[in-house]
Amino acid sequence: MAGSLDSGHVRRFNIHLVLRHLREAEGSTASELAGATGLSRPSVNGALAELERLGWIASAGMSTTDLGGRPARRHRFHASAGLLLGVDIGVHGVRVVVGDLSGTLLDERVAGVAPEAMPDARLAVVDALIDAMVNDPGRVWAMGIAVTGPVDSSGRTALFSPLPGWAEVDLPQRFGRRFGWPVLVGNDVKVALLAERQWGVADGVDDVAFVLAGARIGAAATVGGMLLRGHGGAAGEVGALPAVRWGRAVRDLVGNEGALVPGMDLAFRAAASGERGALARVERFADDVATGAAAVTLMLDPEVLVIGGRAAAFAELWVPRFSASLAAQVLRMPEIRISTLGGNHVARGALRLAMLDIERRFFGDELVAARAPRP
Amino acid sequence: MAGSLDSGHVRRFNIHLVLRHLREAEGSTASELAGATGLSRPSVNGALAELERLGWIASAGMSTTDLGGRPARRHRFHASAGLLLGVDIGVHGVRVVVGDLSGTLLDERVAGVAPEAMPDARLAVVDALIDAMVNDPGRVWAMGIAVTGPVDSSGRTALFSPLPGWAEVDLPQRFGRRFGWPVLVGNDVKVALLAERQWGVADGVDDVAFVLAGARIGAAATVGGMLLRGHGGAAGEVGALPAVRWGRAVRDLVGNEGALVPGMDLAFRAAASGERGALARVERFADDVATGAAAVTLMLDPEVLVIGGRAAAFAELWVPRFSASLAAQVLRMPEIRISTLGGNHVARGALRLAMLDIERRFFGDELVAARAPRP
Repeated sequence: MAGSLDSGHVRRFNIHLVLRHLREAEGSTASELAGATGLSRPSVNGALAELERLGWIASAGMSTTDLGGRPARRHRFHASAGLLLGVDIGVHGVRVVVGDLSGTLLDERVAGVAPEAMPDARLAVVDALIDAMVNDPGRVWAMGIAVTGPVDSSGRTALFSPLPGWAEVDLPQRFGRRFGWPVLVGNDVKVALLAERQWGVADGVDDVAFVLAGARIGAAATVGGMLLRGHGGAAGEVGALPAVRWGRAVRDLVGNEGALVPGMDLAFRAAASGERGALARVERFADDVATGAAAVTLMLDPEVLVIGGRAAAFAELWVPRFSASLAAQVLRMPEIRISTLGGNHVARGALRLAMLDIERRFFGDELVAARAPRP
Repeated sequence: MAGSLDSGHVRRFNIHLVLRHLREAEGSTASELAGATGLSRPSVNGALAELERLGWIASAGMSTTDLGGRPARRHRFHASAGLLLGVDIGVHGVRVVVGDLSGTLLDERVAGVAPEAMPDARLAVVDALIDAMVNDPGRVWAMGIAVTGPVDSSGRTALFSPLPGWAEVDLPQRFGRRFGWPVLVGNDVKVALLAERQWGVADGVDDVAFVLAGARIGAAATVGGMLLRGHGGAAGEVGALPAVRWGRAVRDLVGNEGALVPGMDLAFRAAASGERGALARVERFADDVATGAAAVTLMLDPEVLVIGGRAAAFAELWVPRFSASLAAQVLRMPEIRISTLGGNHVARGALRLAMLDIERRFFGDELVAARAPRP
């Protein structure tokens, strides 16, 4: 803020205040908004008129009052004014979800991809899913994409990616040119944490460490509610530390034969049935995940540590040992929570990335009309 | 901000804007302030009158103009309205610095303490230094204290401290009761980083990792300009990770005989003179510091990594190997900078802690008169 405040600033601040309450509520009357915001009724009515004119709010019917007064009109955020896409581009497959501006899921599809597929083939699968799900590209406001590896400020994964030929792929340009949408790219573990913060077990917790224990193991964190990105996008890559065996841990769990993704399930099920070799491998896996989690915990001292990814579905088999191993290595033990978001949490995190871009564009300093942004 | 903005808010905002510019400048005229803030001349004059009435500004003489106009009065922040103390309570000694409200150092004293001294004896040394340095306790506005170990929100170091009997010591109560000042307690490594950010090589860098390589080795970091504290104050304790040998590294450098503090100097000097055993020990030390720095770097991906502490004075002997070892372990290499603040950087960091408390109390939402705060 370089200059002074004037009445225009104050009016815009009041409009934002009303919009913020409407985005968090199911539907509110003007007098409920006045109570919640501390604004006068004329200020609330002025804000509502402006928000309706700009397309940000819609009617949510009439309230029925217990006190016998006249029913009042209810207002709600117009979440269906636009659509958002979330895309998870993985080694073995692609997942696309469609949501409204509030992030409510409307559609979801997956497709398999050969691990050795080159970028053109992999991206053609994404195109096909989008074409099948989106009739009118003009209704889409923004697209979030999750990929493995550190994502730099241009949306590239130049430092490291498990996808063949991926270092030079420019996703914002590729999809921006094809569809005309703003395209946001994020690291898969980091955006999964965004989903946990918005819809999962990390809701309302500001200092969260997150360990995604899937076919790959990765870490991410929020500090004071802010996602740790790192100067070059490479925060959370503690699994690369030689003493942290995250690059080998899933392979050792599965055994040297077989694919990682079904192999994890098989290993956990064998352990559940009491097979001795599988039990030992699951114990080793728990210790390996704990070594990296200890590095994260000692560095950040989070309030909560969330476990997500495919291994979270088998938490009862390995998280007790993980917790004991972690507790033996750290100064202060965080609360351990198991993700409940399931298999689409990375795609939902990508959707959240698109949602945050919309929030930044539309609910920041300047309030503009509710229509699709174009780069 | 739960309510709406009114003209009182706007006026206070303008006063803060003028004060902020005066705190960062050597001395400014009203027209310079109008140019720098974008405020009108009447708004600037109103703000200056209010700031003078509250005691926050003083005259900095008259300006001489190049254009032949009338000389204008220069205003400056009244940094000598109060004093701040910074105290570094270490295993082998205590250091106290006195500064003004801008953090300019006015006085500094050190005293040795036996490592085995119990809290009462150790704190009596602090009292004696303060009594010798501060004639009028009423002139002191706040006191910052740095200690080793994670500092919780109450100012205690209950999780870990190398000082005998220290877990239950309540420094804010002890010194607050004795002198009546607000007392802020911080971890030594974290406050040394605050000093680096304010006066040292981390000035102007928001994503900084800091490794304090002294008789103890510790880490700290800022993310987006905010100090990483951790939910229980235990962020940065990556040296406790078993694979990171920070608890042994200095002992191994010095050898099993002798005190750590002179021993470090002796080991580095022996290496500088080419003594083979010392050279090997310094190489091992460089690798040990790098292992922990790799954990920090992989987790946070900082822009700059600052090396401080006693070993920083011998940087040319070990930092080249440290850098090579670090580069082999991380995905993206941060810029390495060597601290130039010298031996009092922890005490200056404690002073900075006091300064930040004053900024929070006086330059936050409400502007109050310039006089010593009392708890």
